[in-house]
Amino acid sequence: MNPRSGRAPAPAPRRELIADAALTLLAERGMRGLTHRAVDEAAGLPQGSTSNLARTRAALLETAVRRLAEREAAVLTPREMPRAPVAGAAPRPDDAVAAVAEALSLALHRYLSRHRHLLIARYELALEATRRPELRAVYDRAGQAFREPMVAMLAAAGSAEPERHALSMVAWCDGVLFSCTAGQFHAAVPDRDALRTSCTELLDGMLRG
Amino acid sequence: MNPRSGRAPAPAPRRELIADAALTLLAERGMRGLTHRAVDEAAGLPQGSTSNLARTRAALLETAVRRLAEREAAVLTPREMPRAPVAGAAPRPDDAVAAVAEALSLALHRYLSRHRHLLIARYELALEATRRPELRAVYDRAGQAFREPMVAMLAAAGSAEPERHALSMVAWCDGVLFSCTAGQFHAAVPDRDALRTSCTELLDGMLRG
Repeated sequence: MNPRSGRAPAPAPRRELIADAALTLLAERGMRGLTHRAVDEAAGLPQGSTSNLARTRAALLETAVRRLAEREAAVLTPREMPRAPVAGAAPRPDDAVAAVAEALSLALHRYLSRHRHLLIARYELALEATRRPELRAVYDRAGQAFREPMVAMLAAAGSAEPERHALSMVAWCDGVLFSCTAGQFHAAVPDRDALRTSCTELLDGMLRG
Repeated sequence: MNPRSGRAPAPAPRRELIADAALTLLAERGMRGLTHRAVDEAAGLPQGSTSNLARTRAALLETAVRRLAEREAAVLTPREMPRAPVAGAAPRPDDAVAAVAEALSLALHRYLSRHRHLLIARYELALEATRRPELRAVYDRAGQAFREPMVAMLAAAGSAEPERHALSMVAWCDGVLFSCTAGQFHAAVPDRDALRTSCTELLDGMLRG
């Protein structure tokens, strides 16, 4: 341990190293496996490093939620995501549905094929947030970054009730991710075509009622 | 503690008392809060009672999953659920869609308004099952009891791909339950009308493609 580091804010790389180790522990061992000492070990850092960055368990959990949001943003909003329509260039509904279904099925497939441990860590943190109001607030702020673009995307695709539809679509995406990672369909993960078809069906039902 | 109880199988009421206490602890305190001693205390039983019933942690978790399946069956398959169609009396598609949407939105609403702690316990157990193959097997067997009626219900409503559609619908239901309990929409739980409308949209998209 470097005694000179004191309680000053850690530089970004160490913060990321610690937060990533916390997320990995949450996925592999659950809430019971997340301790300051286990994070030190998993991150390959001297004992006490995690405590220097996040003294309490609550602070460690908040660090993990913030890092999760950064890493999820990289998975869920890649360059392929459809952009908001240019003013004056209203998309045709079919094009808009196809673009949204393509973007969402790509993100779901990428998540399920390459980032399962992030999902498990997220669900662990979401459950813990039901018991910790201060964590809930951090989790909810992070979630807005995904909800608001979904509302905008559905409105641009022609939804008359984009808030209700966003809830339904976010729930469907989250349910697919949960069911195919920890739930009933963990052994029968759909391929990209099946995800795109199912997503298109939900969009069709919403937008062509 | 009654030393005469030894290791003989506990009578049903005590098994239920212990399993229900375990589910409550999982919801209120998470996996970290589930210990044999905490279950004894929560159930109001003498110390050692839980160990007599389920010696290991794995056995305690399996007891909780089995009890959860019993209690979920009572929430999710009430008398109002649509029955399989009588031979020779094919339902009209509109009737079938309306009946499925009514049954599912009723079950979702009942779950969200009265059984949130069961949901949280289920998600805790599902995540733990990603790390315990023997728990996974118990969880998966319990899940079949819900998946198979969904496949049958969608086939009866006219689905050409009832397996894929069941995955999509189970995922949507699970996503609504998760999002509205532990996730992004915990503070904006939809009412029954909104649940029915959203469920109908998904069914319409599936069945009227």
